[in-house]
This record gives sequence, C-alpha cells and structure tokens, in this order.
Amino acid sequence: MEAIKTTNFELFDIIVNGEKEEKEKVKLVELEGWVKTNRDNGSIGFIEFNDGTCFKNVQLVYNKEAKGYEVLTALRTGAAIKVIGEVVLTPEMKQPFEIHVKECELEGDVADDYPLQKKRHSFEFLREIAHVRPRANTFQAVYRVRSVLSMAIHEFFQERGFIYVHTPLITTNDGEGAGNVFDVTTHDTKDPNYFYGRKVNLTVTGQLHVEPFALAFRDVYTFGPAFRAEHSNTARHASEFWMVEPEIAFADLSDNMDLIEDCIKYCINYVIKSCPDEMNFFNTMIDNTLLERLNHVLNSEFKRMPYTEGIEILKEAVKNGHKFDYNKIEWGMDLQSEHERYLTEQVVKGPLFLTDYPKEIKAFYMRLNDDGKTVAACDLLVPMIGELVGGSQREERYDLLKKKMEELGNDKELEWYLDTRRYGGCRHSGFGIGFDRLLMYITGMQNIRDTQPYPRTSGSIKY
Amino acid sequence: MEAIKTTNFELFDIIVNGEKEEKEKVKLVELEGWVKTNRDNGSIGFIEFNDGTCFKNVQLVYNKEAKGYEVLTALRTGAAIKVIGEVVLTPEMKQPFEIHVKECELEGDVADDYPLQKKRHSFEFLREIAHVRPRANTFQAVYRVRSVLSMAIHEFFQERGFIYVHTPLITTNDGEGAGNVFDVTTHDTKDPNYFYGRKVNLTVTGQLHVEPFALAFRDVYTFGPAFRAEHSNTARHASEFWMVEPEIAFADLSDNMDLIEDCIKYCINYVIKSCPDEMNFFNTMIDNTLLERLNHVLNSEFKRMPYTEGIEILKEAVKNGHKFDYNKIEWGMDLQSEHERYLTEQVVKGPLFLTDYPKEIKAFYMRLNDDGKTVAACDLLVPMIGELVGGSQREERYDLLKKKMEELGNDKELEWYLDTRRYGGCRHSGFGIGFDRLLMYITGMQNIRDTQPYPRTSGSIKY
Repeated sequence: MEAIKTTNFELFDIIVNGEKEEKEKVKLVELEGWVKTNRDNGSIGFIEFNDGTCFKNVQLVYNKEAKGYEVLTALRTGAAIKVIGEVVLTPEMKQPFEIHVKECELEGDVADDYPLQKKRHSFEFLREIAHVRPRANTFQAVYRVRSVLSMAIHEFFQERGFIYVHTPLITTNDGEGAGNVFDVTTHDTKDPNYFYGRKVNLTVTGQLHVEPFALAFRDVYTFGPAFRAEHSNTARHASEFWMVEPEIAFADLSDNMDLIEDCIKYCINYVIKSCPDEMNFFNTMIDNTLLERLNHVLNSEFKRMPYTEGIEILKEAVKNGHKFDYNKIEWGMDLQSEHERYLTEQVVKGPLFLTDYPKEIKAFYMRLNDDGKTVAACDLLVPMIGELVGGSQREERYDLLKKKMEELGNDKELEWYLDTRRYGGCRHSGFGIGFDRLLMYITGMQNIRDTQPYPRTSGSIKY
Repeated sequence: MEAIKTTNFELFDIIVNGEKEEKEKVKLVELEGWVKTNRDNGSIGFIEFNDGTCFKNVQLVYNKEAKGYEVLTALRTGAAIKVIGEVVLTPEMKQPFEIHVKECELEGDVADDYPLQKKRHSFEFLREIAHVRPRANTFQAVYRVRSVLSMAIHEFFQERGFIYVHTPLITTNDGEGAGNVFDVTTHDTKDPNYFYGRKVNLTVTGQLHVEPFALAFRDVYTFGPAFRAEHSNTARHASEFWMVEPEIAFADLSDNMDLIEDCIKYCINYVIKSCPDEMNFFNTMIDNTLLERLNHVLNSEFKRMPYTEGIEILKEAVKNGHKFDYNKIEWGMDLQSEHERYLTEQVVKGPLFLTDYPKEIKAFYMRLNDDGKTVAACDLLVPMIGELVGGSQREERYDLLKKKMEELGNDKELEWYLDTRRYGGCRHSGFGIGFDRLLMYITGMQNIRDTQPYPRTSGSIKY
C-alpha cells in the first residue's frame, strides 16, 4: 500500500468532518513536520508532532518495530522529520486519532543550542529569538490569527465592492503634520535630494493619497505599512506597523461610524469562527475574559457620545472622588488613555464612539462643525485598550480647508490634495485602524512586540 | 414614492441578473457620483454618469420637467451630483436601462482648470495628474483590476492554507547583496545609528525573513512593498513596488514550479472572470492580442528547460543568423530580456521555466546542484514581458550555505538566518512575483508607472 501524503490539517479535517468513505481511504499516511516533544518509556514512544498547518498536534506512537527506531528514540524537540504510519482512530481519547509509525527519517536535526525547549518561555525571552518563536504555541496562534484577520479585512471590504489601493510608502508629506518621520536617503551621496530631486520620508498615513481614489471609486481602502519615528517605548507603539484606512465618498460621520462598527464586528466574528483552537488557547493561557468580552462586543450596539458630554462625565467623576493620574479635566484637553478607558469601561461598559472633538486637538483635514469649535471626528474606544479606531468626516469645503492648511503651512506642498476639493469634490469620510492593535485586542496579547513577526521598536533591530 | 439609494453596480446587477420581482422594485432611485459627459440638444439632455462602483456608465436623460434643470444643463465633466430618477428599461438599446431624471443637486462643482476632459489624454499627461487620473477610463480599469488581482493572490494562498506574513520593511540586510538600498534615518540627528542603534535600510525582499516562518508553518507567503534605489529609468522598474513571496517547506524545485504555474493561472482566470468589462476594454484599447494570449497561457502546460539547454538554443539561433543586440552567447552569461523573450516567444511559444542557472549569477541562498556548477533556480519567462517570476530551492545544508555566506561576508550579519539550518531545517523552496509586473502582464499596460497609484521612480515624486 502506498502512503498518502497529507498534513495535520487535512487529517483532522477528514477524521472530524469527513464522510465515512473519505475516512476509510486514509489508512497509511506520510507526514513531514517538526517534533514538539518526544518521550519514550523503553518499549513505546510518543511524539507530539506539528507541521504548522493547524494548531493541534498529531500524536505519533512508535515502538521497536518501526523502521528508523534509533532515529525515533533520539529525536529532539525541533527536529524536522518525515514519518510514514498508520492512522488509528481513538474516539475514546482526547485526540480523535493517532499515528502508529512504520518508518521515520530525520530531515533536519537540531543543534544543542536550540533555544526552544519543552518548558514555558517568557515572552521577553522569545522576543530575542524572533526566527524561532513562530514554532512556539503562542506564536503559532498569534501569527495564524494575524493571517486570518488580514483576510477578514480584505473580505469585508471586497465583499462590499471597495477598491484596494496601494498608497505609496515613500512620500514627501508627513500626513497630519505630527512630525517624527523617518527620512529616506541613498548611499551614493549625502545629498538627500539626490534620488527623487527632493527630500522624502516614510509615510505615516495613506489617507491623503487615498482620498482622490474615493473621489473616483466611491468606496476604497488601503491596507499596508506605516511608520512613526517616535521614541515611545510602550507596549502599544511600534515604529513600523500595518494600517487599514478605508475612505468612503458621499458619506458623513454617521455613515462612517456604521461602517466602523460593521467592520470590527465582522473581524471579531470571522476570527472566532475561523480559529476556534487558537481563540480557546488565548482564552485559557492569555486572558480568560477574552471570549466573553469579544462576544459582548458582537452583541452590543456601539454607543455614541460627543466629546463635550464625555468631559462633563469625567468632571463629574472627579467631583465624586475618582482619581485619575491626570486629574485636571477641562474642555479642550486631549484625553489620556485612562480617561478613555474610564468612559468605555466604567460608564458605557462597552465600545464607545466619542465624537466631535475640539478642532485644536484634531487633524487639519477634519470637517468643521457648525458650532465653529468642534470637528466631525469619531474615535472608537474599547475596554482594555482605549482608542482602537480613529476617523472623521473630511473637510470638503475648499475655502475652509485652504485657510486651515495655510495656517499650518502645508497648502503649497499639498496643493494637489486641496485641488481635489475643486474638482467635483463631495462629502466623504474615512477612518484608520491600527491593524496590530486590533490584533492585540482580538487575541488578548498585551504587547505589540508579540503580535508582529519582527517588531521594529526604538533601539531594537536584531533581525 | 421614496427613492431607493443605490449605485451603478447594484443597478446593473439587478437589471441584468436579478429576479423579476427584484427588478420591479427598482423604480425610483437615488444615485450619487460624477458626470463624465453632458450633452443637451435644447429639449433633451444626456449625461454619462459614473459613481466608480463599476466600469460601465449609467445614462441619465433629462428635460425641462426635471427639478434642477438649470443645474443639469450647466453640469460639466467631473462634477459631483446627486440625482433622483426613474429607471426605464431599454432592452433594444446598447445599455439595458437609463434613468429619467426627476431631480438633480450639484454636490461639488469643477473649476475651469479641471484637467480631465472628454478627449483622449496621453498616459504621459495623465501621469502628471495622479490625483485625477483614477477617474479616467483606463485607470478605472487598471486600479480595479489591481484590487481584484490583489484579492486573487490572497484567495489563492489562503484557500491552500498558507499563512500571510508581514515581513518588516525596515531592515539591516540587503537581501541578495545587490546593493542599491534606500537608507532610513531620523531628522533629529545626523547619526544613522540613532534610532535603532545601527544602520538600517528599506527591504529589497521579504524572503530571508519569511523562511523561518515556512520552517514553522510549512506554507507561507508575504505580500507587501519592497524597494530598490536603482536609477534604471525603464518602463519596467520602479523604486517602490509590491512583491508576493511564497515560501514552502518540504518542497523542492519541481513542487515550486507546480505552485508558480497554479498561481499564475489562478490569477489570470480570476481576473478574466471578475472583470469582464475591464478586460474587454484592455483588449480593445490597449492590446488586442491580450485575451488571446492570456487564454493561451491558461490552456498551456508551462515548459521547463535547463539554462544550459537554453544557451545551446540561443547559440544555434545566432549560428543560423539571428541577431541579438547582445550577440555573444556563452554559458555563464546572465540572459538579457531579448534572450529570454526569444526563448519564450520564438522557441516554446508560451510560458517557460528556465532552470538550473550557473551559481555565479544567482543569489547565495539558492541550492547547489550535484554538478557543483549550477543552482536549483527557476525563472518563469513569458511572452512580451520576459521574466515574470523568479524562484529557487533554498540551500538547506548548513555547511554549504555557511561557506557561501562567508565568501560573501554576510554570515555574521545573518547568523540568525544561517541558524535556521541548524534548528530542524528541511528542504524548502520559494519564489517572488513582482506584483506590478504581473498586473502589466494581465492588463497589457506597457509602463509600470501606469499600474501603480502613485509611482515612485528615480527623479520623480510630485504627489
């Protein structure tokens, strides 16, 4: 009988979900993958085997009859092997089947200094071995969910007819004027203008570049990297991160919030459905309120509250004895994470859109409200995290936008952007989701360094 | 009766594909979008209207009865409008329906200097107005296909269980050692080591970073930007471009070529099925052999030929009087585009994998063949373009790889990469697709500047 080449994923799928005839075909199989653990009591040995195709391990059972027995008993954590074996159903056990090994070949041995061992390693330690941690349980789960969540984003927007736009990463503007950009130069000269004829830097946002596409395709989105050269050494900041930036024409702030709510719920639901093993792992090992919290979000209507009302509530809280680290609450202030979390965790106990912020603390392109003091912005605040999404209706009125940009001094540099308001402009809105933060939120992982394949944070770049 | 808010896409979809009852519901509709043309013979006017949701325009018909008639007659190309009107089926006409306008509002007028007019503009001119060209027919088609092709890539790999990995863009290595990288620095100091503690540059490939993920998840892919600071001012080079880089473990060069062939055919088929109007447009306006050529690829088995045989054929061609610009054909040379195109266009008349190149002209990480002279590389050559995909089986043997890297001098810098060969390594392979070139190939567009939203080429960065 010839062995069927297969994978952990396919085996679980056929044996758990397959038809009877399908199951019966899978008798002798060939698998290739890695040893997670190997124990041998002298007469019988057990290998937890994983080939990376699903979160669950397959149990390999072997004894002296197996061809390559000496190889089998000597296998160490991390070794790459090929095994041929018989599928034995074990409905009474935890795993629905195991493999009785007939033959084993070593494909790649592990050196003595292989850093990933059976014991539990700290996340700090694992960060130091970015090239090996994808094999650790937590990172098998994190990176698979990262991939699935990326696909959720694409499917959400593509199903709704949005056009995916690759906005440029090398640019001449600094987006919101926040500074802290990375400059891009070439080796061959010290002249920063050499390659492009002018100074360029890495983008902080694709929004300005994607707006003209919304004014041509109506509904568009970006999904790509962005950069901030901030020395903030926190668990939530990385200097390189991925952003999702949808932009919708003929849509106001309320349409924008509807879309944000749909998008976040879609993503959560998609991941919970697609990655049950991974999500159970996070709920067990990382944060045991995770699934409850996510399900609560799925079943809540996101509240909406003007900033001004939020400030009143915070003032009231202080009056009633609540102590914030920053306790001087006043209209016009930029809210700190502690304030945002108070509103979402203590007041509305769920996701909250805070809207209509003072114009002074928001970006130049946000639409001025009729009160002349606030802009049509919306930040989505969620428990545990604070701000998850930031959005706004854009200022479509040429004169108002021009005045604002003249004050800021970017009207000449961004004349093309301003021109979009003279060329059949219309009301339009958009938002930005920090993809890595959304992943933190959905997995319960506490540090952005543990959600990215090779995190880029200030002072650190080993890989 | 209340008007139903809808879009061009939805209207065509319901009227062409909908059930009778669905169609009958669509009587009075509200649309928002842009005027492409407006002509008025005094008693009756016609507007070609597009809202960006599909390639086809909707025809609006109006007369003096319409509310906002003065607005209607004055509408210019590019204006943003809202219209309410009656759907009238016109099965005898070219378009299956038209809209008889009841009301029209101007949402955004166009200034006199609006650069996009009814007449046909050159691609060179349109490149100068990157913020407006998404509204031009060709770019409506290009950017929609770009979005659809991106989704084809994701679906192809996700359906097969591949994990999508966001490899970093800021890195310390230069990939294949080709040089020509962009440096990344910060404003606040001239010290290039300031932010990360060492010199960093923009990535030229995600491959080295994604290999460790293949050695954990088996099948993985990247899809993101890459950069080359080359001053090659050609129609096929941009300094910023998107790359797809799959990497598969327990797979050799032949498995790799199988995957490349499946992937390219999947993408072509996906775009032809999803974008019939756009593909017909390209076939009519850009290249009238396009669909024939793509269909030929779908129905061909991709040929495979060793480099050594390719050289013999080229030599024979020269002997028989064929004149290449570079006519001195000898084993060991790097093929020029003209040679590649001769092999794929004249010899096999279809897609061709050229394999097993001399080790001297290929990257350090490619697996040395038993002959000691060639490496297990495969380049996919296609008619009209030349090289579309480059791939290889990777050198998994630690000692051989180490020696190669020591010669190149990157063994210390990339010690972590080398270590993956000591930590349960295995045979593995992968390839890179230049996404923008694939898009050129599928649309027939001749210049990479006309496939990217905001192209970044040497000496040019207006937007």
